[in-house]
Amino acid sequence: MGELIFVGLGLAGIGDLSLKALEALRECDVVFAEFYTSKATGFDQAELESITGKRMKVLSREEVETGNEVIEATRTGKVCFVTAGDPMAATTHVDLRIRAQESGIATRLVHGISIFTACASALGLQPYKFGRTVTLPFSEPGYSPTSPYENILENKARNLHTLILLDIKEEEGRYMTASEGVRWLLDAERRTGKGLIGDKTLICAAARIGSPSEKVIAAYPPDLISADLGPPLHAFVLPGRLHFMEARSLVTFAAAPQQILENED
Amino acid sequence: MGELIFVGLGLAGIGDLSLKALEALRECDVVFAEFYTSKATGFDQAELESITGKRMKVLSREEVETGNEVIEATRTGKVCFVTAGDPMAATTHVDLRIRAQESGIATRLVHGISIFTACASALGLQPYKFGRTVTLPFSEPGYSPTSPYENILENKARNLHTLILLDIKEEEGRYMTASEGVRWLLDAERRTGKGLIGDKTLICAAARIGSPSEKVIAAYPPDLISADLGPPLHAFVLPGRLHFMEARSLVTFAAAPQQILENED
Repeated sequence: MGELIFVGLGLAGIGDLSLKALEALRECDVVFAEFYTSKATGFDQAELESITGKRMKVLSREEVETGNEVIEATRTGKVCFVTAGDPMAATTHVDLRIRAQESGIATRLVHGISIFTACASALGLQPYKFGRTVTLPFSEPGYSPTSPYENILENKARNLHTLILLDIKEEEGRYMTASEGVRWLLDAERRTGKGLIGDKTLICAAARIGSPSEKVIAAYPPDLISADLGPPLHAFVLPGRLHFMEARSLVTFAAAPQQILENED
Repeated sequence: MGELIFVGLGLAGIGDLSLKALEALRECDVVFAEFYTSKATGFDQAELESITGKRMKVLSREEVETGNEVIEATRTGKVCFVTAGDPMAATTHVDLRIRAQESGIATRLVHGISIFTACASALGLQPYKFGRTVTLPFSEPGYSPTSPYENILENKARNLHTLILLDIKEEEGRYMTASEGVRWLLDAERRTGKGLIGDKTLICAAARIGSPSEKVIAAYPPDLISADLGPPLHAFVLPGRLHFMEARSLVTFAAAPQQILENED
């Protein structure tokens, strides 16, 4: 009986791979991957195949959800299932792990560098001051939920920061940009009018974290909407109350306006 | 003029090191480290020195806080500053980065695998359902704050999970265990009586995440207090409302009582 190892690729290129991940990929018999829940910046499949000596089969959403091919492959050998970031961030991966275990297959995690921590880190925001994370969905006709807005509002009422992830429609090659995300929030503000975000609400955006082309910027909404952060992935943070050191970090590394130093703790 | 690179070691042994981290350590001129804010399980300094070819100077709290030696070393070369987990989780690291930048020294982050993500992942809990993180401090005469208790209560009222980190007194070799942490919460419960935790409140504990001796267990307080999770580091999670998949994951991988499957979403 084989083994199923969930391997996190991290955020940016082959360099984010851990030594443990590299070893697992080199020693296994089959490698599957999925890139529809997230993707790693500058990640080159051919490069990974070359340094691990293993061909990698990229699975569709349906193939991951049924999981049959993955489970089947573990019957005869060691299988790696590769994802961007940390390998358990998506429910569907947890589901796959449970089903494997219930089929009598041993499972193991090889953790990866994750946006959930690295975004705070890149901005110099304290990780324990984040409330719940939200994801902004692309608007569809008849579908424009305001729950992410409400969740950010609740975090802010408790002086907490919010990590805001952005929708991915990998099949269509659409990745929501930070600029679109800010417009999303301004639109929700217009519809609900609860005072979460205005022209002088500081927002921190980050693009391609951990890659050589990483860009972080802390600015007010009008400036962020017109800022060009370049290609995906983007994420942003709507900060709660800033500690002095956090405000200084945003001014120093993310070109935040100097006046934020006057309001911090 | 040199460069100051903040390198995250990850959580468990040399294997958590990223390829990027290894490259930075091999190419730099001087390596400093601090292990008083956190430490990596099974990390062997001599092993790291051997694979990087660099001696590493471990700094005391005071040496990190003044930062003079680190800043001085960057005047003539490339310097790595190494920490467990992700390199910016502690305010003092952000402070050091700002001071370096203000002295005209370029800085860079090499992210690491962090407890902030990996603990959720090891348990199969959804990372975006966590509220703010708390740290339980060792009680001192005249110092027994209840703010961590209050913060967990606020998270739970919003159906959110809380990652609970445990105090470290590295100078004394003291690392709070999950069992001590549970007793800490029960004591706060007795003093405040707000109904956060009782005999049937599920708690998830994790020890040495990412290491070969990793242990995760989800149980009620009396069972957790008597459970032996082995050596540090420990962390635990007081879950909010569990999604079906989360409950199944806790039953499958953390030996949670079957009856939790009856209450989930």
